[in-house]
Amino acid sequence: MKVGIIGLGLIGGSIAKEIKTRSLGTIEVLGSEMNPNHRMKVEELGLVDLLISTTELLELSDVIILATPVNVIKEQIVSILDQMSGDQVLIDVGSTKRFICKEVEHHVNRKQYVAAHPLAGTEFSGPAASIIGLFDGKKNIICQKEKSSKVALNTALKIFEFLGMSTYYLGSEEHDRHLAYVSHLSHISSFTLSLTVQEIENDQKQIFNLASTGFASTARLAKSNADTWGPIFDANSKYLVEAIDLYIQYLNQFRESIQLKNIEESKKLMNKANNISSVLEGIALN
Amino acid sequence: MKVGIIGLGLIGGSIAKEIKTRSLGTIEVLGSEMNPNHRMKVEELGLVDLLISTTELLELSDVIILATPVNVIKEQIVSILDQMSGDQVLIDVGSTKRFICKEVEHHVNRKQYVAAHPLAGTEFSGPAASIIGLFDGKKNIICQKEKSSKVALNTALKIFEFLGMSTYYLGSEEHDRHLAYVSHLSHISSFTLSLTVQEIENDQKQIFNLASTGFASTARLAKSNADTWGPIFDANSKYLVEAIDLYIQYLNQFRESIQLKNIEESKKLMNKANNISSVLEGIALN
Repeated sequence: MKVGIIGLGLIGGSIAKEIKTRSLGTIEVLGSEMNPNHRMKVEELGLVDLLISTTELLELSDVIILATPVNVIKEQIVSILDQMSGDQVLIDVGSTKRFICKEVEHHVNRKQYVAAHPLAGTEFSGPAASIIGLFDGKKNIICQKEKSSKVALNTALKIFEFLGMSTYYLGSEEHDRHLAYVSHLSHISSFTLSLTVQEIENDQKQIFNLASTGFASTARLAKSNADTWGPIFDANSKYLVEAIDLYIQYLNQFRESIQLKNIEESKKLMNKANNISSVLEGIALN
Repeated sequence: MKVGIIGLGLIGGSIAKEIKTRSLGTIEVLGSEMNPNHRMKVEELGLVDLLISTTELLELSDVIILATPVNVIKEQIVSILDQMSGDQVLIDVGSTKRFICKEVEHHVNRKQYVAAHPLAGTEFSGPAASIIGLFDGKKNIICQKEKSSKVALNTALKIFEFLGMSTYYLGSEEHDRHLAYVSHLSHISSFTLSLTVQEIENDQKQIFNLASTGFASTARLAKSNADTWGPIFDANSKYLVEAIDLYIQYLNQFRESIQLKNIEESKKLMNKANNISSVLEGIALN
Protein backbone atom coordinates (compact mmCIF):
# COMPACT_ATOMS: atom_id res chain seq x y z
CA MET A 1 0.00 0.00 0.00
CA LYS A 2 1.08 3.57 -0.72
CA VAL A 3 0.04 6.38 1.65
CA GLY A 4 0.58 9.91 0.33
CA ILE A 5 0.68 12.78 2.80
CA ILE A 6 0.14 16.32 1.53
CA GLY A 7 1.70 18.79 4.00
CA LEU A 8 4.48 17.51 6.24
CA GLY A 9 4.24 19.78 9.28
CA LEU A 10 3.75 18.65 12.87
CA ILE A 11 0.69 16.47 12.09
CA GLY A 12 1.51 15.25 8.56
CA GLY A 13 5.16 14.75 9.50
CA SER A 14 4.30 12.78 12.63
CA ILE A 15 1.91 10.53 10.68
CA ALA A 16 4.67 9.95 8.10
CA LYS A 17 7.28 9.18 10.76
CA GLU A 18 4.96 6.80 12.57
CA ILE A 19 3.97 4.85 9.45
CA LYS A 20 7.48 4.77 8.00
CA THR A 21 9.03 3.65 11.29
CA ARG A 22 6.42 1.14 12.38
CA SER A 23 5.07 -0.43 9.16
CA LEU A 24 8.46 -2.06 8.55
CA GLY A 25 8.35 -1.29 4.86
CA THR A 26 4.91 -2.79 4.23
CA ILE A 27 3.51 0.68 3.61
CA GLU A 28 5.31 3.10 1.31
CA VAL A 29 5.08 6.71 2.49
CA LEU A 30 4.92 9.40 -0.19
CA GLY A 31 4.88 13.08 0.70
CA SER A 32 4.48 16.51 -0.84
CA GLU A 33 5.33 19.82 0.78
CA MET A 34 5.08 23.37 -0.61
CA ASN A 35 7.49 25.11 1.78
CA PRO A 36 11.11 24.74 0.47
CA ASN A 37 12.62 24.96 3.98
CA HIS A 38 10.27 22.28 5.22
CA ARG A 39 11.12 20.15 2.17
CA MET A 40 14.80 20.31 3.09
CA LYS A 41 13.99 19.32 6.67
CA VAL A 42 11.83 16.40 5.48
CA GLU A 43 14.73 15.09 3.37
CA GLU A 44 17.20 15.61 6.20
CA LEU A 45 15.00 13.70 8.68
CA GLY A 46 14.05 11.04 6.13
CA LEU A 47 10.39 11.43 7.05
CA VAL A 48 9.06 9.89 3.81
CA ASP A 49 10.17 7.28 1.27
CA LEU A 50 9.53 9.61 -1.64
CA LEU A 51 9.18 13.40 -1.59
CA ILE A 52 7.33 14.36 -4.78
CA SER A 53 4.89 16.91 -6.21
CA THR A 54 1.24 16.84 -5.13
CA THR A 55 0.26 15.90 -8.71
CA GLU A 56 2.57 12.88 -8.68
CA LEU A 57 1.41 11.97 -5.18
CA LEU A 58 -2.23 11.98 -6.31
CA GLU A 59 -1.35 9.64 -9.15
CA LEU A 60 0.63 7.15 -7.06
CA SER A 61 -1.13 6.95 -3.66
CA ASP A 62 -3.81 4.48 -2.55
CA VAL A 63 -4.67 6.65 0.43
CA ILE A 64 -4.16 10.41 0.49
CA ILE A 65 -3.89 12.27 3.78
CA LEU A 66 -4.40 16.00 3.55
CA ALA A 67 -2.54 17.70 6.39
CA THR A 68 -2.06 21.29 5.28
CA PRO A 69 -3.43 24.29 7.29
CA VAL A 70 -7.25 24.36 7.24
CA ASN A 71 -7.47 27.30 4.82
CA VAL A 72 -5.26 25.42 2.34
CA ILE A 73 -7.32 22.22 2.77
CA LYS A 74 -10.42 24.23 1.92
CA GLU A 75 -8.73 25.62 -1.23
CA GLN A 76 -7.29 22.27 -2.37
CA ILE A 77 -9.90 19.69 -1.52
CA VAL A 78 -12.25 20.06 -4.50
CA SER A 79 -9.42 19.90 -7.00
CA ILE A 80 -7.95 16.85 -5.21
CA LEU A 81 -11.29 15.02 -5.25
CA ASP A 82 -11.65 15.93 -8.93
CA GLN A 83 -8.38 14.14 -9.71
CA MET A 84 -9.10 10.98 -7.74
CA SER A 85 -9.78 7.62 -9.34
CA GLY A 86 -12.49 5.33 -8.00
CA ASP A 87 -10.41 3.24 -5.61
CA GLN A 88 -8.47 6.02 -3.91
CA VAL A 89 -9.36 7.28 -0.44
CA LEU A 90 -8.88 10.85 0.83
CA ILE A 91 -8.68 11.74 4.52
CA ASP A 92 -8.22 15.28 5.79
CA VAL A 93 -6.92 15.92 9.30
CA GLY A 94 -7.80 19.61 9.72
CA SER A 95 -8.86 21.07 13.08
CA THR A 96 -12.13 22.55 11.81
CA LYS A 97 -14.58 20.53 9.76
CA ARG A 98 -17.68 22.56 8.89
CA PHE A 99 -16.29 24.65 6.01
CA ILE A 100 -14.26 21.80 4.61
CA CYS A 101 -17.24 19.41 4.58
CA LYS A 102 -19.40 22.12 3.03
CA GLU A 103 -16.89 22.60 0.25
CA VAL A 104 -17.28 19.00 -0.99
CA GLU A 105 -20.88 18.42 0.09
CA HIS A 106 -22.19 17.66 -3.38
CA HIS A 107 -18.98 16.44 -4.97
CA VAL A 108 -19.39 13.33 -7.11
CA ASN A 109 -16.49 11.67 -5.27
CA ARG A 110 -17.66 12.71 -1.76
CA LYS A 111 -17.97 9.10 -0.61
CA GLN A 112 -14.23 8.52 -1.15
CA TYR A 113 -13.48 11.22 1.41
CA VAL A 114 -13.34 10.95 5.22
CA ALA A 115 -13.40 14.14 7.33
CA ALA A 116 -11.21 13.51 10.37
CA HIS A 117 -9.62 15.41 13.23
CA PRO A 118 -7.04 13.56 15.28
CA LEU A 119 -7.00 15.39 18.63
CA ALA A 120 -3.27 15.58 19.07
CA GLY A 121 -0.58 18.18 18.77
CA THR A 122 2.06 20.14 20.60
CA GLU A 123 2.79 23.86 20.69
CA PHE A 124 5.51 23.32 18.09
CA SER A 125 5.18 23.18 14.31
CA GLY A 126 6.86 22.14 11.08
CA PRO A 127 8.49 18.81 10.10
CA ALA A 128 11.22 19.27 12.76
CA ALA A 129 8.49 19.02 15.41
CA SER A 130 7.34 15.59 14.16
CA ILE A 131 7.42 12.94 16.85
CA ILE A 132 6.69 9.25 17.22
CA GLY A 133 3.86 8.56 19.66
CA LEU A 134 2.08 11.89 19.15
CA PHE A 135 -1.23 10.15 18.49
CA ASP A 136 -0.87 7.19 20.82
CA GLY A 137 -3.78 6.85 23.27
CA LYS A 138 -5.43 10.03 21.95
CA LYS A 139 -8.85 10.48 20.40
CA ASN A 140 -9.81 10.98 16.78
CA ILE A 141 -13.07 12.54 15.55
CA ILE A 142 -14.67 11.58 12.25
CA CYS A 143 -17.43 13.86 10.97
CA GLN A 144 -20.33 13.01 8.67
CA LYS A 145 -19.39 9.33 8.64
CA GLU A 146 -22.61 8.55 6.75
CA LYS A 147 -21.28 10.47 3.75
CA SER A 148 -18.18 8.26 3.39
CA SER A 149 -18.26 4.84 1.76
CA LYS A 150 -17.68 1.81 3.98
CA VAL A 151 -14.37 1.17 2.25
CA ALA A 152 -13.16 4.74 2.78
CA LEU A 153 -14.30 4.75 6.42
CA ASN A 154 -12.65 1.41 7.17
CA THR A 155 -9.39 2.52 5.58
CA ALA A 156 -9.41 5.68 7.72
CA LEU A 157 -10.23 3.71 10.88
CA LYS A 158 -7.36 1.31 10.21
CA ILE A 159 -4.92 4.19 9.84
CA PHE A 160 -6.07 5.91 13.05
CA GLU A 161 -5.97 2.60 14.87
CA PHE A 162 -2.44 2.08 13.61
CA LEU A 163 -1.59 5.47 15.11
CA GLY A 164 -2.99 4.27 18.46
CA MET A 165 -6.16 6.37 18.37
CA SER A 166 -9.78 5.59 19.25
CA THR A 167 -12.35 7.19 16.97
CA TYR A 168 -15.56 9.08 17.93
CA TYR A 169 -18.22 10.41 15.59
CA LEU A 170 -19.73 13.89 15.44
CA GLY A 171 -21.57 16.07 12.96
CA SER A 172 -19.30 18.72 11.42
CA GLU A 173 -21.29 21.60 12.93
CA GLU A 174 -21.27 19.92 16.34
CA HIS A 175 -17.53 19.24 16.02
CA ASP A 176 -16.69 22.88 15.37
CA ARG A 177 -18.88 24.15 18.19
CA HIS A 178 -17.40 21.77 20.78
CA LEU A 179 -13.85 22.35 19.61
CA ALA A 180 -14.28 26.12 19.87
CA TYR A 181 -14.77 25.66 23.61
CA VAL A 182 -12.51 22.75 24.40
CA SER A 183 -9.56 23.55 22.14
CA HIS A 184 -9.62 26.90 20.36
CA LEU A 185 -10.60 28.92 23.44
CA SER A 186 -7.66 27.44 25.40
CA HIS A 187 -5.35 28.81 22.74
CA ILE A 188 -6.98 32.24 22.83
CA SER A 189 -6.70 32.40 26.62
CA SER A 190 -3.01 31.43 26.52
CA PHE A 191 -2.17 33.91 23.77
CA THR A 192 -4.02 36.62 25.69
CA LEU A 193 -2.23 35.81 28.96
CA SER A 194 1.09 36.13 27.18
CA LEU A 195 0.18 39.50 25.64
CA THR A 196 -1.03 40.84 28.98
CA VAL A 197 2.03 39.76 30.94
CA GLN A 198 4.38 41.08 28.28
CA GLU A 199 2.71 44.46 28.37
CA ILE A 200 3.29 44.91 32.08
CA GLU A 201 6.71 43.23 32.25
CA ASN A 202 8.92 45.03 29.75
CA ASP A 203 11.83 43.00 30.94
CA GLN A 204 11.71 39.32 29.90
CA LYS A 205 14.20 38.55 32.66
CA GLN A 206 11.72 39.85 35.23
CA ILE A 207 8.92 37.59 33.91
CA PHE A 208 11.30 34.71 34.10
CA ASN A 209 12.23 35.50 37.70
CA LEU A 210 8.62 35.77 38.82
CA ALA A 211 6.92 33.12 36.74
CA SER A 212 6.46 29.69 38.20
CA THR A 213 5.46 26.38 36.68
CA GLY A 214 1.77 27.37 36.98
CA PHE A 215 2.31 30.26 34.59
CA ALA A 216 4.34 28.05 32.26
CA SER A 217 1.51 25.55 32.07
CA THR A 218 -1.20 28.16 31.46
CA ALA A 219 0.81 30.08 28.87
CA ARG A 220 2.26 27.02 27.09
CA LEU A 221 -0.11 27.25 24.11
CA ALA A 222 0.97 30.88 23.54
CA LYS A 223 3.93 29.37 21.69
CA SER A 224 1.55 27.98 19.03
CA ASN A 225 2.08 28.84 15.39
CA ALA A 226 0.12 31.78 13.94
CA ASP A 227 0.04 30.25 10.43
CA THR A 228 -1.71 27.16 11.80
CA TRP A 229 -4.06 28.86 14.25
CA GLY A 230 -4.99 31.99 12.30
CA PRO A 231 -6.90 29.94 9.69
CA ILE A 232 -8.46 27.70 12.39
CA PHE A 233 -9.80 30.69 14.34
CA ASP A 234 -11.02 32.18 11.08
CA ALA A 235 -12.77 28.99 9.90
CA ASN A 236 -14.45 28.65 13.28
CA SER A 237 -15.11 32.35 13.94
CA LYS A 238 -18.86 31.90 14.54
CA TYR A 239 -18.51 29.45 17.43
CA LEU A 240 -15.24 30.84 18.72
CA VAL A 241 -16.71 34.33 19.14
CA GLU A 242 -19.61 32.71 21.01
CA ALA A 243 -17.12 30.92 23.28
CA ILE A 244 -15.05 34.07 23.89
CA ASP A 245 -18.22 35.97 24.80
CA LEU A 246 -19.19 33.39 27.42
CA TYR A 247 -15.61 33.40 28.71
CA ILE A 248 -15.66 37.20 29.07
CA GLN A 249 -18.98 36.91 30.91
CA TYR A 250 -17.43 34.58 33.52
CA LEU A 251 -14.31 36.72 33.65
CA ASN A 252 -16.45 39.72 34.49
CA GLN A 253 -18.14 37.75 37.26
CA PHE A 254 -14.72 37.02 38.73
CA ARG A 255 -13.63 40.62 38.27
CA GLU A 256 -16.70 41.92 40.03
CA SER A 257 -16.47 39.55 42.98
CA ILE A 258 -12.79 40.45 43.42
CA GLN A 259 -13.34 44.18 43.04
CA LEU A 260 -16.24 44.13 45.51
CA LYS A 261 -14.09 41.96 47.81
CA ASN A 262 -16.84 39.36 47.85
CA ILE A 263 -14.66 36.36 48.73
CA GLU A 264 -17.63 34.01 49.05
CA GLU A 265 -18.68 34.70 45.47
CA SER A 266 -15.11 34.20 44.20
CA LYS A 267 -14.90 30.92 46.09
CA LYS A 268 -18.21 29.78 44.66
CA LEU A 269 -16.84 30.32 41.14
CA MET A 270 -13.62 28.48 41.99
CA ASN A 271 -15.43 25.55 43.57
CA LYS A 272 -17.50 25.20 40.43
CA ALA A 273 -14.36 25.45 38.30
CA ASN A 274 -12.78 22.67 40.40
CA ASN A 275 -15.32 20.23 38.91
CA ILE A 276 -13.05 19.96 35.90
CA SER A 277 -10.56 17.97 38.04
CA SER A 278 -11.77 14.49 37.22
CA VAL A 279 -11.75 15.29 33.50
CA LEU A 280 -8.21 16.64 33.70
CA GLU A 281 -6.99 13.65 35.62
CA GLY A 282 -8.35 11.40 32.91
CA ILE A 283 -6.40 13.34 30.30
CA ALA A 284 -3.22 13.32 32.38
CA LEU A 285 -3.48 9.54 32.63
CA ASN A 286 -3.51 9.21 28.88
CA MET B 1 17.90 24.44 66.13
CA LYS B 2 14.12 24.22 66.29
CA VAL B 3 12.00 25.35 63.34
CA GLY B 4 8.27 25.78 64.05
CA ILE B 5 5.84 25.79 61.13
CA ILE B 6 2.37 27.24 61.61
CA GLY B 7 0.01 25.80 58.97
CA LEU B 8 0.95 22.46 57.43
CA GLY B 9 -0.73 22.59 54.02
CA LEU B 10 1.02 22.19 50.67
CA ILE B 11 3.68 24.84 51.39
CA GLY B 12 4.14 24.45 55.17
CA GLY B 13 3.93 20.66 54.89
CA SER B 14 6.49 20.54 52.07
CA ILE B 15 8.90 22.75 54.05
CA ALA B 16 8.45 20.44 57.07
CA LYS B 17 9.00 17.31 54.99
CA GLU B 18 12.10 18.73 53.35
CA ILE B 19 13.74 19.86 56.60
CA LYS B 20 12.80 16.72 58.52
CA THR B 21 14.02 14.44 55.74
CA ARG B 22 17.19 16.25 54.77
CA SER B 23 18.51 17.81 58.01
CA LEU B 24 19.24 14.33 59.40
CA GLY B 25 17.97 15.24 62.83
CA THR B 26 20.09 18.38 63.23
CA ILE B 27 16.97 20.53 62.97
CA GLU B 28 13.89 19.70 65.01
CA VAL B 29 10.66 20.43 63.17
CA LEU B 30 7.68 21.59 65.25
CA GLY B 31 4.29 22.19 63.72
CA SER B 32 0.84 23.53 64.52
CA GLU B 33 -2.29 23.08 62.44
CA MET B 34 -5.85 24.27 63.09
CA ASN B 35 -7.71 21.86 60.79
CA PRO B 36 -8.37 18.56 62.64
CA ASN B 37 -8.40 16.49 59.42
CA HIS B 38 -5.10 18.01 58.36
CA ARG B 39 -3.69 17.31 61.84
CA MET B 40 -4.55 13.63 61.45
CA LYS B 41 -2.88 13.56 58.03
CA VAL B 42 0.24 15.28 59.41
CA GLU B 43 0.52 12.62 62.14
CA GLU B 44 -0.10 9.84 59.65
CA LEU B 45 2.59 11.13 57.29
CA GLY B 46 4.98 11.98 60.12
CA LEU B 47 5.57 15.41 58.62
CA VAL B 48 6.88 16.98 61.88
CA ASP B 49 8.75 15.84 64.97
CA LEU B 50 6.21 17.44 67.27
CA LEU B 51 2.66 18.53 66.48
CA ILE B 52 1.66 21.08 69.15
CA SER B 53 -0.45 24.20 69.69
CA THR B 54 0.63 27.50 68.15
CA THR B 55 1.20 28.91 71.67
CA GLU B 56 3.60 26.08 72.52
CA LEU B 57 5.26 26.37 69.12
CA LEU B 58 5.91 30.09 69.69
CA GLU B 59 7.54 29.29 73.02
CA LEU B 60 9.79 26.51 71.72
CA SER B 61 10.91 27.56 68.23
CA ASP B 62 14.04 29.44 67.22
CA VAL B 63 12.61 30.15 63.79
CA ILE B 64 8.87 30.39 63.11
CA ILE B 65 7.52 29.92 59.59
CA LEU B 66 4.00 31.20 59.06
CA ALA B 67 2.38 29.22 56.23
CA THR B 68 -1.38 29.69 56.72
CA PRO B 69 -3.63 31.24 54.01
CA VAL B 70 -2.83 34.94 53.50
CA ASN B 71 -5.97 36.17 55.30
CA VAL B 72 -5.03 34.11 58.37
CA ILE B 73 -1.44 35.38 58.24
CA LYS B 74 -2.79 38.93 58.26
CA GLU B 75 -4.98 38.15 61.30
CA GLN B 76 -2.26 36.31 63.24
CA ILE B 77 0.94 38.14 62.50
CA VAL B 78 0.66 41.03 65.01
CA SER B 79 -0.20 38.70 67.88
CA ILE B 80 2.68 36.37 66.92
CA LEU B 81 5.20 39.22 66.79
CA ASP B 82 3.84 40.41 70.18
CA GLN B 83 4.71 37.06 71.74
CA MET B 84 8.21 36.78 70.31
CA SER B 85 11.36 37.06 72.39
CA GLY B 86 14.38 38.97 71.13
CA ASP B 87 16.28 36.13 69.47
CA GLN B 88 13.41 34.48 67.58
CA VAL B 89 12.92 34.97 63.85
CA LEU B 90 9.57 34.99 62.03
CA ILE B 91 9.22 34.30 58.29
CA ASP B 92 5.91 34.31 56.46
CA VAL B 93 5.52 32.58 53.11
CA GLY B 94 2.23 34.10 51.90
CA SER B 95 1.55 34.79 48.20
CA THR B 96 0.68 38.46 48.70
CA LYS B 97 2.88 40.80 50.69
CA ARG B 98 1.50 44.35 50.73
CA PHE B 99 -1.26 43.95 53.33
CA ILE B 100 0.82 41.66 55.54
CA CYS B 101 3.78 44.06 55.57
CA LYS B 102 1.44 46.97 56.25
CA GLU B 103 -0.02 45.14 59.27
CA VAL B 104 3.36 45.02 61.06
CA GLU B 105 4.90 48.18 59.59
CA HIS B 106 5.40 49.92 62.93
CA HIS B 107 5.62 46.86 65.17
CA VAL B 108 8.37 47.03 67.76
CA ASN B 109 9.59 43.57 66.69
CA ARG B 110 9.38 44.27 62.93
CA LYS B 111 13.11 43.65 62.43
CA GLN B 112 12.73 40.03 63.60
CA TYR B 113 10.34 39.38 60.71
CA VAL B 114 11.13 38.50 57.08
CA ALA B 115 8.39 38.82 54.44
CA ALA B 116 8.97 36.03 51.93
CA HIS B 117 7.20 34.39 49.00
CA PRO B 118 8.70 31.16 47.72
CA LEU B 119 7.44 30.87 44.13
CA ALA B 120 6.49 27.23 44.21
CA GLY B 121 3.32 25.22 44.39
CA THR B 122 1.13 22.73 42.63
CA GLU B 123 -2.61 22.75 41.97
CA PHE B 124 -3.10 20.48 45.00
CA SER B 125 -3.47 21.45 48.64
CA GLY B 126 -3.31 20.21 52.22
CA PRO B 127 -0.62 18.14 54.01
CA ALA B 128 -1.30 15.15 51.74
CA ALA B 129 -0.04 17.25 48.81
CA SER B 130 3.34 17.89 50.49
CA ILE B 131 6.28 16.82 48.38
CA ILE B 132 10.07 16.72 48.61
CA GLY B 133 11.72 18.88 45.98
CA LEU B 134 8.83 21.34 45.58
CA PHE B 135 11.16 24.31 46.06
CA ASP B 136 14.26 22.95 44.40
CA GLY B 137 15.62 25.23 41.68
CA LYS B 138 12.74 27.70 42.11
CA LYS B 139 12.86 31.37 43.06
CA ASN B 140 12.05 33.04 46.33
CA ILE B 141 11.11 36.70 46.78
CA ILE B 142 11.87 38.65 49.94
CA CYS B 143 10.12 41.99 50.37
CA GLN B 144 11.26 45.04 52.35
CA LYS B 145 14.58 43.39 53.19
CA GLU B 146 15.78 46.69 54.71
CA LYS B 147 13.18 46.33 57.48
CA SER B 148 14.55 42.96 58.66
CA SER B 149 17.64 42.65 60.87
CA LYS B 150 20.75 41.10 59.36
CA VAL B 151 20.35 38.09 61.62
CA ALA B 152 16.71 37.52 60.63
CA LEU B 153 17.51 37.97 56.93
CA ASN B 154 20.47 35.59 57.05
CA THR B 155 18.42 32.97 58.85
CA ALA B 156 15.72 33.22 56.19
CA LEU B 157 18.27 33.08 53.37
CA LYS B 158 19.82 29.94 54.88
CA ILE B 159 16.43 28.23 55.04
CA PHE B 160 15.51 29.09 51.44
CA GLU B 161 18.96 28.04 50.30
CA PHE B 162 18.49 24.75 52.14
CA LEU B 163 15.24 24.34 50.17
CA GLY B 164 17.22 24.85 46.95
CA MET B 165 15.89 28.33 46.16
CA SER B 166 17.59 31.49 44.95
CA THR B 167 16.28 34.71 46.50
CA TYR B 168 15.35 37.97 44.76
CA TYR B 169 14.32 41.24 46.41
CA LEU B 170 11.29 43.41 45.67
CA GLY B 171 9.22 46.07 47.42
CA SER B 172 5.93 44.68 48.75
CA GLU B 173 3.84 46.90 46.45
CA GLU B 174 5.95 45.94 43.45
CA HIS B 175 5.71 42.26 44.43
CA ASP B 176 1.92 42.29 44.52
CA ARG B 177 1.62 44.13 41.22
CA HIS B 178 3.97 41.76 39.36
CA LEU B 179 2.43 38.67 40.89
CA ALA B 180 -1.06 39.80 39.88
CA TYR B 181 0.04 39.49 36.25
CA VAL B 182 2.45 36.58 36.35
CA SER B 183 0.67 34.31 38.83
CA HIS B 184 -2.80 35.36 39.95
CA LEU B 185 -4.06 36.15 36.44
CA SER B 186 -3.02 32.67 35.24
CA HIS B 187 -5.26 31.20 37.90
CA ILE B 188 -8.18 33.43 36.95
CA SER B 189 -7.82 32.50 33.28
CA SER B 190 -7.74 28.77 34.10
CA PHE B 191 -10.73 28.96 36.43
CA THR B 192 -12.63 30.93 33.80
CA LEU B 193 -11.77 28.45 31.05
CA SER B 194 -13.09 25.62 33.20
CA LEU B 195 -16.36 27.45 33.94
CA THR B 196 -16.90 28.29 30.27
CA VAL B 197 -16.25 24.77 29.02
CA GLN B 198 -18.45 23.24 31.71
CA GLU B 199 -21.32 25.52 30.76
CA ILE B 200 -21.35 24.35 27.17
CA GLU B 201 -20.46 20.71 27.81
CA ASN B 202 -23.05 19.40 30.22
CA ASP B 203 -21.58 15.99 29.87
CA GLN B 204 -18.17 15.56 31.53
CA LYS B 205 -17.58 12.52 29.37
CA GLN B 206 -17.91 14.68 26.26
CA ILE B 207 -15.29 17.16 27.55
CA PHE B 208 -13.01 14.25 28.24
CA ASN B 209 -13.47 12.86 24.75
CA LEU B 210 -12.76 16.18 23.07
CA ALA B 211 -10.12 17.70 25.31
CA SER B 212 -6.48 17.20 24.44
CA THR B 213 -3.29 17.78 26.38
CA GLY B 214 -3.37 21.47 25.37
CA PHE B 215 -6.63 21.95 27.23
CA ALA B 216 -5.32 19.99 30.21
CA SER B 217 -2.28 22.25 30.42
CA THR B 218 -4.26 25.49 30.15
CA ALA B 219 -6.96 24.41 32.61
CA ARG B 220 -4.61 22.74 35.11
CA LEU B 221 -4.73 25.59 37.61
CA ALA B 222 -8.54 25.37 37.67
CA LYS B 223 -8.02 22.57 40.18
CA SER B 224 -6.55 25.07 42.67
CA ASN B 225 -8.04 25.39 46.14
CA ALA B 226 -10.65 28.13 46.72
CA ASP B 227 -9.67 28.53 50.39
CA THR B 228 -6.10 29.34 49.37
CA TRP B 229 -6.84 31.50 46.35
CA GLY B 230 -9.95 33.38 47.54
CA PRO B 231 -7.91 35.29 50.15
CA ILE B 232 -5.00 35.85 47.72
CA PHE B 233 -7.30 37.38 45.07
CA ASP B 234 -8.93 39.45 47.81
CA ALA B 235 -5.65 40.70 49.27
CA ASN B 236 -4.45 41.66 45.81
CA SER B 237 -7.74 42.91 44.37
CA LYS B 238 -6.37 46.32 43.33
CA TYR B 239 -3.67 44.96 41.03
CA LEU B 240 -5.56 41.85 40.00
CA VAL B 241 -8.54 43.87 38.73
CA GLU B 242 -6.05 46.03 36.78
CA ALA B 243 -4.54 42.85 35.27
CA ILE B 244 -7.96 41.37 34.41
CA ASP B 245 -8.92 44.64 32.70
CA LEU B 246 -5.85 44.58 30.51
CA TYR B 247 -6.48 40.90 29.76
CA ILE B 248 -10.07 41.63 28.72
CA GLN B 249 -8.78 44.43 26.49
CA TYR B 250 -6.50 42.00 24.61
CA LEU B 251 -9.25 39.39 24.54
CA ASN B 252 -11.53 41.91 22.86
CA GLN B 253 -8.84 42.64 20.27
CA PHE B 254 -8.70 38.92 19.48
CA ARG B 255 -12.48 38.68 19.45
CA GLU B 256 -12.79 41.58 17.03
CA SER B 257 -10.12 40.34 14.64
CA ILE B 258 -11.75 36.89 14.59
CA GLN B 259 -15.27 38.23 14.19
CA LEU B 260 -14.23 40.56 11.37
CA LYS B 261 -12.28 37.64 9.85
CA ASN B 262 -9.15 39.77 9.86
CA ILE B 263 -6.62 36.91 9.89
CA GLU B 264 -3.64 39.24 9.56
CA GLU B 265 -4.59 41.07 12.76
CA SER B 266 -5.09 37.76 14.62
CA LYS B 267 -1.71 36.54 13.39
CA LYS B 268 -0.07 39.78 14.53
CA LEU B 269 -1.42 39.22 18.05
CA MET B 270 -0.25 35.58 18.02
CA ASN B 271 3.21 36.46 16.75
CA LYS B 272 3.57 38.97 19.57
CA ALA B 273 2.29 36.38 22.06
CA ASN B 274 4.93 33.91 20.74
CA ASN B 275 7.63 36.16 22.27
CA ILE B 276 6.95 34.47 25.59
CA SER B 277 8.62 31.29 24.23
CA SER B 278 12.13 31.92 25.49
CA VAL B 279 10.81 32.74 28.96
CA LEU B 280 8.74 29.56 29.05
CA GLU B 281 11.65 27.44 27.89
CA GLY B 282 13.73 28.82 30.75
CA ILE B 283 11.01 27.79 33.22
CA ALA B 284 10.66 24.35 31.68
CA LEU B 285 14.38 23.81 32.08
CA ASN B 286 14.16 24.52 35.79
